[in-house]
Amino acid sequence: MTLKGRDIISFFDFSREEVEYLFRRADELESLRRGETLNVANGKIVAVIFFEPSTRTRLSFTMAVKRLGGDVLDFGEVQRTSVAKGETLADTIKMIDGYKVDLIVLRHPSEGASKLAAEFAEAPVINAGDGSREHPTQTLLDLYTIWREFKHIDNLNIGIMGDLKYGRTPSSLSYGLSLFSNVKIYYIAPEILQIREEVLEMVERKIRYEKIEKLQDAINELDVLYVTRIQKERLPNPEEYEKLKGLYTVTPSSLEGCKENLIVMHPLPRVTELSPEVDSTKHARYFQQAVNGMVIRAALIKEILGLEG
Amino acid sequence: MTLKGRDIISFFDFSREEVEYLFRRADELESLRRGETLNVANGKIVAVIFFEPSTRTRLSFTMAVKRLGGDVLDFGEVQRTSVAKGETLADTIKMIDGYKVDLIVLRHPSEGASKLAAEFAEAPVINAGDGSREHPTQTLLDLYTIWREFKHIDNLNIGIMGDLKYGRTPSSLSYGLSLFSNVKIYYIAPEILQIREEVLEMVERKIRYEKIEKLQDAINELDVLYVTRIQKERLPNPEEYEKLKGLYTVTPSSLEGCKENLIVMHPLPRVTELSPEVDSTKHARYFQQAVNGMVIRAALIKEILGLEG
Amino acid sequence: MTLKGRDIISFFDFSREEVEYLFRRADELESLRRGETLNVANGKIVAVIFFEPSTRTRLSFTMAVKRLGGDVLDFGEVQRTSVAKGETLADTIKMIDGYKVDLIVLRHPSEGASKLAAEFAEAPVINAGDGSREHPTQTLLDLYTIWREFKHIDNLNIGIMGDLKYGRTPSSLSYGLSLFSNVKIYYIAPEILQIREEVLEMVERKIRYEKIEKLQDAINELDVLYVTRIQKERLPNPEEYEKLKGLYTVTPSSLEGCKENLIVMHPLPRVTELSPEVDSTKHARYFQQAVNGMVIRAALIKEILGLEG
Repeated sequence: MTLKGRDIISFFDFSREEVEYLFRRADELESLRRGETLNVANGKIVAVIFFEPSTRTRLSFTMAVKRLGGDVLDFGEVQRTSVAKGETLADTIKMIDGYKVDLIVLRHPSEGASKLAAEFAEAPVINAGDGSREHPTQTLLDLYTIWREFKHIDNLNIGIMGDLKYGRTPSSLSYGLSLFSNVKIYYIAPEILQIREEVLEMVERKIRYEKIEKLQDAINELDVLYVTRIQKERLPNPEEYEKLKGLYTVTPSSLEGCKENLIVMHPLPRVTELSPEVDSTKHARYFQQAVNGMVIRAALIKEILGLEG
Repeated sequence: MTLKGRDIISFFDFSREEVEYLFRRADELESLRRGETLNVANGKIVAVIFFEPSTRTRLSFTMAVKRLGGDVLDFGEVQRTSVAKGETLADTIKMIDGYKVDLIVLRHPSEGASKLAAEFAEAPVINAGDGSREHPTQTLLDLYTIWREFKHIDNLNIGIMGDLKYGRTPSSLSYGLSLFSNVKIYYIAPEILQIREEVLEMVERKIRYEKIEKLQDAINELDVLYVTRIQKERLPNPEEYEKLKGLYTVTPSSLEGCKENLIVMHPLPRVTELSPEVDSTKHARYFQQAVNGMVIRAALIKEILGLEG
Repeated sequence: MTLKGRDIISFFDFSREEVEYLFRRADELESLRRGETLNVANGKIVAVIFFEPSTRTRLSFTMAVKRLGGDVLDFGEVQRTSVAKGETLADTIKMIDGYKVDLIVLRHPSEGASKLAAEFAEAPVINAGDGSREHPTQTLLDLYTIWREFKHIDNLNIGIMGDLKYGRTPSSLSYGLSLFSNVKIYYIAPEILQIREEVLEMVERKIRYEKIEKLQDAINELDVLYVTRIQKERLPNPEEYEKLKGLYTVTPSSLEGCKENLIVMHPLPRVTELSPEVDSTKHARYFQQAVNGMVIRAALIKEILGLEG
């Protein structure tokens, strides 16, 4: 199996076999998890082009490259660049590609931006989020966090809670989970923020699901509780945000009656939806997601660049 | 011949011999063109100080340094720096120079800024554009792109089109071409944007030239067509910009009747003055200018730092 | 003596022995002062997290890391990060720490931020300025500059001039000097900007001091004149700033009657309080503070990371 030279545009491009292959490769990078730097990417330069801010993703990719021994060429802030002069994405990508970077990591507000970039670039392109749908390495790190915990994903009960309608994570995680067998998803949200029909249509032959309004109604069933932020900027007005944000907050008492080995995940940053008091419970895994994200991205980059060792 | 330790402030500081020497050195860096990293600049740190944004130039220099095996110290955005507190350029430069960087690459909105910086810095200084006149490495990469194509620059017919009055490239390219023999320049622009008299006075003993209004009147004579952007910010008012920008747009049909081996160049970013349909013609060379820019800058840095190998 | 793994939150955490130990370690890094790069920190990655701009400090730490052979992970501008989405400092630090950086350098506008960060991070934390009080490496570099000049700090007469009330440097330098014996400080400022009582209370058993209004009254006694900026942003209104800034300006004639080996220091950036004409006198040391800052920070990082060679 090889991912060498592959563009990573959509999570749908991966087979289950490839995903599990990447998880095993990531597990081999145990030294990165301890903070050691490998030298396998010496002399490799990865362009990091973010057309919208996303600290966590940018730093995670940057750290992955540096821990492999490579370096990044950071495009910098878009407002200060030639893009502000009206340059097209195709021209920007062709320029960067012309500098002969080894890989392009692209974040862009428009759906399809990464696919377009991949058409114009000789270097492989990794989609680090474009528009409201695709962010394949986020899905990869979410699944990897579950897999690392349970050693499998089949047969698990996963609760996804918060803004399921406007958030990107709930739908992309649903697609990701549909690669596996006998997964059940509990969609936990108020009606107004429930998962969209189009998502359910895509996954319903692969997973079982239930839409519920209250965490208590499923807490005893869950292996994973994935909490997401209710994003003010996705909601039609601030009043709706104020009304909803309080209702879906996870605290230690929300977890009463849960399974012994339940894990709580969150893509971060969190605001009020996940109480800091959960951090010290044995269920918290959201900070470990950060290092998992760095490690799985390193594994992916290593495979795409065909690096040995 | 050595450029070791030299400040590169003005293109006029170069002799024809030095320019051609750099072209040959750049051709030897073929491995950079293929995306390999050399180790000749290991441990060298180049300060990249941009007082105004210029993505292309900043990334090109940064990539050149990294591909040589060195690293950069990026000053960051000026609005967020001590400069915003009222610090003088001399003080900023002395501070950076005090960190013992190996080379300073400076972009500044004021004419003479690089010369001033060179007076205060022990490290060599490369002018990456100061004010509206000098940007020596841009001229170098433009000439290198022509030289790489034709193996000579003497005797060529060069069309320069667009905003010849307010743009920096047309005048600096004219000066650059005046180092060579028997070059003819066609200045293609509306009267209001024609090349300034002071430029013609400086080059008229070295080159032949003709001012024309329409590309068609010279297209069959040209070896090179250098298209430039009509920059809104240089024009007295937006109406003038709207009126002019449409008139000087190059499309495949504009090139009808051209020489077989005509090359079309553009400093990029482009907006509307150069149609993307030209990209797939055999004449397009503007994206190759990007990699040429990185390579010739690497060659220059290698010479200034006196690096072997 | 070892500083390995230590958090550097407050200058008070250092003993006199540790400070002098660091000065000697810094002196051994003579090669950094000449612009050579060591390889002792190869593979080490230092997170540089600045929640408020401070070019000089950021570049100085970055350069220190790179000259040791390590690399930095720069958090970037806060406005463009997850912090702007309402993330707490604790979460930001846990995220960065999760990437397994080797060291965190933190600048933050709030007092106590570094202490909080150190509680949440496994990696050691260096306070690069938090709030209006602590900036331990600034104090270290100020003292190191004096020590390097005189080979001792005991028994010196130090004038500190400018905004002693609102500035951070005058108070932290006072604390720093109180580690040594028989130091006398002349506080030179208008009454409205004189040193705060709380500072005097902390240092009065350790140092002798005198509050004066005019530099002339002490210039013949001083071994060191430390000039500071009157910071507009710290003053209640712009009129007060305009009135005061002219009164406390050091020129060559201000130095008449001074000791032969007086040194003039300034944390930089300067505006009008220190005339550029002083630069060419034998007394100026403020640009040497820059390289001293880089070198002492390199020495500190080297010790904290436990690097050999």
